[in-house]
Amino acid sequence: MKYALISVFDKTNVLEFAKDLNSLGYQIITTGGTYNYLKENKIEAIKVEDITNFPEILDGRVKTLHPMLYGGILSIRNNEKHIKQVEEHKINYFDIVAIDLYPFLKTVKNMQNTHEDIIENIDIGGVSLIRAAAKNYKDVITICDINDYQKVINVLKSNEDTKELKTWLAQKAFAHTSSYDSLIANYLFTKSSNTHLPEQITLSYSKKEDLRYGENPHQIAAWYQDNYFEEISLSNATQLHGKQLSYNNLLDANSAINIVKDLNDYSCMVGIKHLNPCGVAIKGSVEELWDKVYDSDSISIFGGILATNQIINKAVAEKLSKIFLEIIIAQDFDQDALEILSLKKNLRLLKLDFLNKNLNINKYQYVSIDQGVLVQQKDNFKHKTSEWKTVTNNHLSDKELEEAYFAFCVVKHVKSNAIAITKNLQTVGVGPGQMNRIGSTKIALEQAGTKANDAILSSDAFLPFNDVVELASQYKIKAIIQPGGSLKDQDSIDLANEKGLVMIFTNVRHFKH
Amino acid sequence: MKYALISVFDKTNVLEFAKDLNSLGYQIITTGGTYNYLKENKIEAIKVEDITNFPEILDGRVKTLHPMLYGGILSIRNNEKHIKQVEEHKINYFDIVAIDLYPFLKTVKNMQNTHEDIIENIDIGGVSLIRAAAKNYKDVITICDINDYQKVINVLKSNEDTKELKTWLAQKAFAHTSSYDSLIANYLFTKSSNTHLPEQITLSYSKKEDLRYGENPHQIAAWYQDNYFEEISLSNATQLHGKQLSYNNLLDANSAINIVKDLNDYSCMVGIKHLNPCGVAIKGSVEELWDKVYDSDSISIFGGILATNQIINKAVAEKLSKIFLEIIIAQDFDQDALEILSLKKNLRLLKLDFLNKNLNINKYQYVSIDQGVLVQQKDNFKHKTSEWKTVTNNHLSDKELEEAYFAFCVVKHVKSNAIAITKNLQTVGVGPGQMNRIGSTKIALEQAGTKANDAILSSDAFLPFNDVVELASQYKIKAIIQPGGSLKDQDSIDLANEKGLVMIFTNVRHFKH
Repeated sequence: MKYALISVFDKTNVLEFAKDLNSLGYQIITTGGTYNYLKENKIEAIKVEDITNFPEILDGRVKTLHPMLYGGILSIRNNEKHIKQVEEHKINYFDIVAIDLYPFLKTVKNMQNTHEDIIENIDIGGVSLIRAAAKNYKDVITICDINDYQKVINVLKSNEDTKELKTWLAQKAFAHTSSYDSLIANYLFTKSSNTHLPEQITLSYSKKEDLRYGENPHQIAAWYQDNYFEEISLSNATQLHGKQLSYNNLLDANSAINIVKDLNDYSCMVGIKHLNPCGVAIKGSVEELWDKVYDSDSISIFGGILATNQIINKAVAEKLSKIFLEIIIAQDFDQDALEILSLKKNLRLLKLDFLNKNLNINKYQYVSIDQGVLVQQKDNFKHKTSEWKTVTNNHLSDKELEEAYFAFCVVKHVKSNAIAITKNLQTVGVGPGQMNRIGSTKIALEQAGTKANDAILSSDAFLPFNDVVELASQYKIKAIIQPGGSLKDQDSIDLANEKGLVMIFTNVRHFKH
Repeated sequence: MKYALISVFDKTNVLEFAKDLNSLGYQIITTGGTYNYLKENKIEAIKVEDITNFPEILDGRVKTLHPMLYGGILSIRNNEKHIKQVEEHKINYFDIVAIDLYPFLKTVKNMQNTHEDIIENIDIGGVSLIRAAAKNYKDVITICDINDYQKVINVLKSNEDTKELKTWLAQKAFAHTSSYDSLIANYLFTKSSNTHLPEQITLSYSKKEDLRYGENPHQIAAWYQDNYFEEISLSNATQLHGKQLSYNNLLDANSAINIVKDLNDYSCMVGIKHLNPCGVAIKGSVEELWDKVYDSDSISIFGGILATNQIINKAVAEKLSKIFLEIIIAQDFDQDALEILSLKKNLRLLKLDFLNKNLNINKYQYVSIDQGVLVQQKDNFKHKTSEWKTVTNNHLSDKELEEAYFAFCVVKHVKSNAIAITKNLQTVGVGPGQMNRIGSTKIALEQAGTKANDAILSSDAFLPFNDVVELASQYKIKAIIQPGGSLKDQDSIDLANEKGLVMIFTNVRHFKH
């Protein structure tokens, strides 16, 4: 006689599975809830207690933790000593172990549950059974996912060799228990008063999709989703049109969405290329926003990504359809707009609700370095212009201060060293990613040209020398917004005063690499 | 009577711990190996079998999986039904559970172990005990790290409230089991023939150190190490001098090390600033290398990071001591050099063995996006110049081809859009991170100036138009190395022929963001 141990929280498809096992000659051993469900449906099964001769106690906290079960799972079938002990203790071999764990994550996510409910949904017995079966995978089929029933039945029915299946299921089992425990550790960490990051972290993700390739065609890649957190993110966007997003699309789109989120108090549109904003505009209608973004840098937007918290209408769609864009992410698309843009085969259209609130947001971001990972809080600092300090004789008006706020929000999202120049709530020059600050300044000012006249120049970090002020004044910049903090701040302030520029210190740096 | 369950693979400090527990009035219950060790050292303990009335079977695979133990761990102490059942079954409460798991990772890392040895070192019972105790953390102290004995004893002796300690230990316990299982899943994945990335990943890291802050002072951050892989990396570097590395230092240093690794067949030195190389040189003595790196960009190297696979000698140290550098990473430092450079308080000196071979290298890299992570193979493509294709009438000599190889290796490590110009095996112009290719070309050529004469220009991706060729020819560039693949390749080839330039297609792109 062959035995299969089944204990599942989610009973979906378990009847068919049990029937199939019966017909394949397996005797089913099962725990209380699953037993009753099978019995109601007239499927033959034996209760675990009848094997262990020990009742289920502590409201089900202890029911399967017994050597009569584990002996049958963990014994090596061709080991003589094991065979002898199994016979001596009248243990039955289990060839299949199918477990669906208590829904810990679902319990956490349901706000109506108490801490006690959540703790009760930490599965102890189920995890132990999965792990024991997976350890002995040469002899045991381990099912930890109710979607794998059919796959197993098919292989058993076909009389194929089960070696590959068992190895794959064992790998999946340990990934599953690892992920399960990382969610618990995560939950307990958020409950603790710890101000330091934990000693050990396990970041657990499920594959959302295999990507065609990574940053380059010779690198394989996949997009994984966090199971624990939920954010305004690509994971929640709905793709309305176009082919699969590429690795580089995902990076760019994520950046674009983050800029919009940062300026979500305004109507906002962002153009992104190679992770840097090439055009950003706020306030005004969606059509005005697009005109400004396009005007910001009509060369770089070619092949770029657009994101907006506004609804794309017909008028904008007609303009957008004339440009080569990779992706448009919007709050929504009018039917007309959707029809127009859907004609473009290589364009991807994504709908994303930028108003989604009350999300369980991950405060941290991760980047791998060789043999490790750097973890840091996301740069979610919210500026208040009332806390900024004007260090020059000249000041900005309230309206100009809003422009400065906008400029500083933008430069935060430009790769360091970063300079952003804005005018009329639109970027007119962006200087990203240079190894020295004057280099980024030159790029931004040259791009702005005459538009630099009376514009605001923002810098992600302090100005090490007064050369930025010198160059800015040549282009007739109105004001410079920067964190301040250089040893040579006074040189820059003096020169700004001499040239009649305004300079504001924000006191907060925004390096981004 | 109070009971503590102890079962440890590593016996370090367990005698003192057990003695302390005895003196605090705890009766110790323990498994075979630990029992014998305590008994040899005359510490009173009870065997687990005397509690379970079931012998250890299957070579220790089954010994603690029994309701007489789990009832005592999992019962809620103030739950009347639980109390009744505990009494009925004559179960003892366990207030402390201390487990040291089988050394799975150590077994994997020891090349002499067989697959069977490794599987045998998957701990089933220990993980179950840790998880059960941690689930019931309101009533039970869970120790999964032998370094926590003293902490627990101190709190118990002080009669302080143990609530906070128990919560912290429970979080640590689930992080530990999650990490343990991720190592197993990882191991089994490497054994499988799967060509796709797995459905579920858990990335497990241990904290190496808390960092002062992240990319910016308002972001908390920490550096975590991978437990599974070992690479030529910062994790294996020895810091000889200077204060703690910052978050930005770590990112920069990781980049610098990766460039050296890519050019490790040569003597090599790299200067990095804001994740981009500002100077790279190969071949020649360490002094020649430094002179070239400094000559490459004597402005950007200010505050930068240096990495070399050579030994820093006195002559170079004297030159380096005159420049403000954040970090020097070298194969080693002569004693003289170390003395000279150690005088600089703000300089960090790191020794790293670039010749280290036979490492267990992680092929993947990770970057988080909101609510997820992107996983891709590292860009470890090794070029052979014999596989490149010259598409112009003019060709390069073998010596010039080596220069082209060097240029293309460098541009791979520059942020996209990337242009790198090299001459005499030294960078003379680097144009990183622009939203359009001609922008990066301008930056690189302007920096190179007259040094562009007869130099090699490399591009990380194809040239979309012939404007790069046009500008390059104005600066008298000798050859352009690029992947090729643009719709307008022929325009670029035609113009290159017209201007007498060489153009080579490598057929492999190297975007890096």
